[in-house]
Amino acid sequence: MAGCGAPMTGSQPAASVVIVGAGFGGLAAAKALARTRAPVAITLIDRQNYHLFQPLLYQVATAGLSPGDIAWPVRGVFRNQPAVLVQLAEVTGVDTAQRAVLLGDRRVPYDYLILATGARHNYYGHPEWEPHAPGLKSVEDATAIRRRILLAFERAEMAEDAAERQRLLTFVVIGGGPTGVELAGAISELARKVLAADFRRINTRTTRVILVEAGPRLLPAFAPALADYAARALGRLGVEVQIGRRITACEAGGVRIDGELQPAATTLWAAGVQAGPLASWLGVPADSQGRVTVGPDLSVPGLPEVFVVGDAARIADAALGFVPGIAPAAKQAGRHVAAVIAARSAGQRGPGPFRYHHQGNLATIGRHSAVIDLGRLRLRGYLAWWLWGGAHVFFLIGVRNRIMVIVQWLWSYLMFQRGARLITGQQERES
Amino acid sequence: MAGCGAPMTGSQPAASVVIVGAGFGGLAAAKALARTRAPVAITLIDRQNYHLFQPLLYQVATAGLSPGDIAWPVRGVFRNQPAVLVQLAEVTGVDTAQRAVLLGDRRVPYDYLILATGARHNYYGHPEWEPHAPGLKSVEDATAIRRRILLAFERAEMAEDAAERQRLLTFVVIGGGPTGVELAGAISELARKVLAADFRRINTRTTRVILVEAGPRLLPAFAPALADYAARALGRLGVEVQIGRRITACEAGGVRIDGELQPAATTLWAAGVQAGPLASWLGVPADSQGRVTVGPDLSVPGLPEVFVVGDAARIADAALGFVPGIAPAAKQAGRHVAAVIAARSAGQRGPGPFRYHHQGNLATIGRHSAVIDLGRLRLRGYLAWWLWGGAHVFFLIGVRNRIMVIVQWLWSYLMFQRGARLITGQQERES
Repeated sequence: MAGCGAPMTGSQPAASVVIVGAGFGGLAAAKALARTRAPVAITLIDRQNYHLFQPLLYQVATAGLSPGDIAWPVRGVFRNQPAVLVQLAEVTGVDTAQRAVLLGDRRVPYDYLILATGARHNYYGHPEWEPHAPGLKSVEDATAIRRRILLAFERAEMAEDAAERQRLLTFVVIGGGPTGVELAGAISELARKVLAADFRRINTRTTRVILVEAGPRLLPAFAPALADYAARALGRLGVEVQIGRRITACEAGGVRIDGELQPAATTLWAAGVQAGPLASWLGVPADSQGRVTVGPDLSVPGLPEVFVVGDAARIADAALGFVPGIAPAAKQAGRHVAAVIAARSAGQRGPGPFRYHHQGNLATIGRHSAVIDLGRLRLRGYLAWWLWGGAHVFFLIGVRNRIMVIVQWLWSYLMFQRGARLITGQQERES
Repeated sequence: MAGCGAPMTGSQPAASVVIVGAGFGGLAAAKALARTRAPVAITLIDRQNYHLFQPLLYQVATAGLSPGDIAWPVRGVFRNQPAVLVQLAEVTGVDTAQRAVLLGDRRVPYDYLILATGARHNYYGHPEWEPHAPGLKSVEDATAIRRRILLAFERAEMAEDAAERQRLLTFVVIGGGPTGVELAGAISELARKVLAADFRRINTRTTRVILVEAGPRLLPAFAPALADYAARALGRLGVEVQIGRRITACEAGGVRIDGELQPAATTLWAAGVQAGPLASWLGVPADSQGRVTVGPDLSVPGLPEVFVVGDAARIADAALGFVPGIAPAAKQAGRHVAAVIAARSAGQRGPGPFRYHHQGNLATIGRHSAVIDLGRLRLRGYLAWWLWGGAHVFFLIGVRNRIMVIVQWLWSYLMFQRGARLITGQQERES
């Protein structure tokens, strides 16, 4: 057996760095730390055995890609880096006094801790809405949503009652950010282009997709002109965009929009996220989204050896107010913390305060239609769509995933088909 | 809406053909019937929305392929054939007197009924073994087995106790037919080639894979020389082949082989199949494997309008005794029944008694190693392996699935990697 403890990289006692979460932030931190060849032993803990490329998760939910196309085993990422020990485990707490991460009754001691635990859906005090309006964060979320969407069409095909058929063919997407826009566009395309020839009793082109946004416009992080374009492009795809309207209930039969019942068999939640319980693990205050405020070196005030990166961190930013919860921000923060730890463990000066470089925002709407806001450069439509696709393939981990996604996309593009139309898992009794 | 009842193909009242099951037999029957342009309305009922290419399911279970690569939506198959109505539903019985298929409280009347319901695992009177030794028939089976296999390595990496670590690194495959041989070979390759560099505390090359067969040799449907080759090739891959030994219990901690406890965290069942409850639906006797005996036209004695094809049918064969439960046999039977029904509904003479044409048997063992028995032509090793791959790609439905499988295989072949190493779904508490 090749070494039974945490591996060492030098002759001096290695500082132990524990990273919780193998999303964009945690992975970037681990990779950067391993590259520095600093005398550290790295333990990367995640409750999944794979890194998930969340920006394309909506395509799994809408039957375009398979989960395996956008997931990469974490062990595979670090197979050639013996300084990194990967553990599949669920973190249950942190003992900040004794400096140990708790995995049930097991303890993993640390000298430095990086929490990159990400975020889940935020139902803003209405957890009872979740079964009726699931959100999209994990592979299991995505395959469950795919099952719901595809089953709705199957049940509509068999429905005897016209009102029930219409309810089954109504989809409500809550939240007008990038995920909501992408989901609504993809469902409408699925109904109008992909499934149209496949059913005999229903006309899937009559499917209603309603995108509800409580704020004054779609895509608040984008320039208003791009948001206007997105709303028009969604309209051309058959999506009904309802702006400035608020969800007041999510029920088994549908949703209430400003108190009014909209019958719908499928409702999806893309209205906001909140961080996990890391603030209570650390015994520090959380903001309204559960995030932990960190200082300029991304460490937690009072706990200089504990860092938070990614969606779970509240990081002040001069231009934007706060650093946004997107993949590039998480990666930058992860790399910054790696530099801080490498410097500190070598007794050198650190890299100075974290500065977020905002590269821009991207969202796709449908075939030949996307928006890209790089600040000075703003693109929409055909070119933006191709750039969006290229950027996403580029940032996928691994040659295989890139090839798989390109093949699936080319095939979908040419054939107007989707390749992963599987209803799997337990069939739910309720709709 | 485009036609709200079962569609018609001619001006005369169409005979209603109901097909239960969209496996190889049911799909072949529906395709052949639609091609004849006989005046029939076809209803194809399955509880899944996809046709599953079961011969490659073991590669999903061993992390080589994604479920979407070997599944094809049934509606997609018949999108250009308006005579075929596809229904996603679970059949609960058959009213043979009134000629209707029962879907809970719904009834689908038929003039002709084709039952192609396939088979599940056969635990030979020990249903309590199933949770400890799952079998491989569905996508859900495959992803659950994949989870078990990958979790065993993860838990071994964290195990503190040497005996427990060895138990976690022991895999028992029960049954020496093609599925058992393919599973055992694929697990051993996964452990020895794919995962070897990915773990730090365990040496996955010490993994034990034990293939247990109660009969006198592996692959009883193949020529003895090929079975001998398979046993030797499995040995070279590190599989321990135990012939003539019988499983006497499957428990949480392992299995008992001839009464002796073999500790093992993962046990897989590939020892036999049995048909579903179709005999009791029809009120006719079943054989020991639950199959219904059919006559030379593949109809059920006493029910000339009810046909059984595929793994659920017991069909006498002059050369082999009975037609084997393999995909080519199911397809041939499905096409034969389509011809019988087309002739009868047109008032013509039928095609004569069913004659099974045995094309041969194929099984793969591992990289560059397979056996092909075509009767006169017998191949093994390198060439057989490439032919096996080519044949399986050829028989996959759809250009996309073929491309996806070729890409994944090429990548695995060149990189010694596997592309779908996802632990998804509920983590089981027991091992």
